[in-house]
Amino acid sequence: MRTQHQHFEVRTKGKGTYEITDELQTAIDKSGLRNGVITVFVQHTSCSLTLMENAAPAARRDVERFFDKLVPENADYEHEDEGPDDMPSHIRMVLTRTSETIPVVDGKMELGTWQGVFLFEHRRDPHRRKILVTLIGE
Amino acid sequence: MRTQHQHFEVRTKGKGTYEITDELQTAIDKSGLRNGVITVFVQHTSCSLTLMENAAPAARRDVERFFDKLVPENADYEHEDEGPDDMPSHIRMVLTRTSETIPVVDGKMELGTWQGVFLFEHRRDPHRRKILVTLIGE
Amino acid sequence: MRTQHQHFEVRTKGKGTYEITDELQTAIDKSGLRNGVITVFVQHTSCSLTLMENAAPAARRDVERFFDKLVPENADYEHEDEGPDDMPSHIRMVLTRTSETIPVVDGKMELGTWQGVFLFEHRRDPHRRKILVTLIGE
Repeated sequence: MRTQHQHFEVRTKGKGTYEITDELQTAIDKSGLRNGVITVFVQHTSCSLTLMENAAPAARRDVERFFDKLVPENADYEHEDEGPDDMPSHIRMVLTRTSETIPVVDGKMELGTWQGVFLFEHRRDPHRRKILVTLIGE
Repeated sequence: MRTQHQHFEVRTKGKGTYEITDELQTAIDKSGLRNGVITVFVQHTSCSLTLMENAAPAARRDVERFFDKLVPENADYEHEDEGPDDMPSHIRMVLTRTSETIPVVDGKMELGTWQGVFLFEHRRDPHRRKILVTLIGE
Repeated sequence: MRTQHQHFEVRTKGKGTYEITDELQTAIDKSGLRNGVITVFVQHTSCSLTLMENAAPAARRDVERFFDKLVPENADYEHEDEGPDDMPSHIRMVLTRTSETIPVVDGKMELGTWQGVFLFEHRRDPHRRKILVTLIGE
């Protein structure tokens, strides 16, 4: 049993979901991990993680529209230091996830057929987002 | 320290919460794990996981009604390939959890008095849902 | 590689977010863990966990107001054995998190610059909340 950390960055171009499944598999391949878990952690409070349907882009657009409606900009927030998408980004992060732990079996993430892992960007401007993965197992 | 994976299936009969606490404890018993964690992962994008009050069925019905209202069917979704409960199921999954990590102490999950672990089914039709658990520890 | 559990309590004084970042770091220091993960688990169904912006208290107040509006008291819940904040507390817990897994690198949690870990209390009355942390690594 051993533990290893790896970092990578995701460049985002505004609000939306960005698939990182391949980057996670690359981290597993590099580490040589065969059996255990990969923990994914996003080091930010204005973007988050989610697993999602990765076959139908329309499903992802519906998720994004749902969040735009549930957590609207310009809703009389007290905190808006960085513009109208600042506070909604923190709320959307709280409603989704910061860490996920995914089983690794025989060197592969054991995802369902249509499951992908996504960075969910909640800011309008382009950002470089830091993802830290921890590989635990043998 | 070692790591072990186990699978099991949950047969669901429509939208609702299905307790899997006993199945998780059985997996721990089988593995012989005494101290560590059990990671629970659901290999689907139209059902999810949550911990919940397991004593009061009325509390679970209120949770289910809340989600039916927050994420209604027939809300002009772009994606509805599999019917009116298709897109809401993905959104409800994003709002809840795909993985949970629960401490195991002396061979038992260290849950609070009223805590149970539930599969949250978001589709109307019966499904067989695959749960993958990873046991890490000694 | 080894695994260690530690408990601590948080005394809450009504609805709101209570930072526990320092308590988690203290647990890591006590354990001697240098590289691995800390899993945080809250043993309750009426409070939860979230990571959040820890610099701007206004941002936390906006999050709290958002949840008060999204999950109102007195909304015709079937379950209200313990008062009007009983059922909303369970729903707010389902919408946030029960477990989080955070990477530990060189003896420190690898949080982003503005990231803090918070207990999110959903009940009006003071409570003693039990947090169980599991440290895995070397």
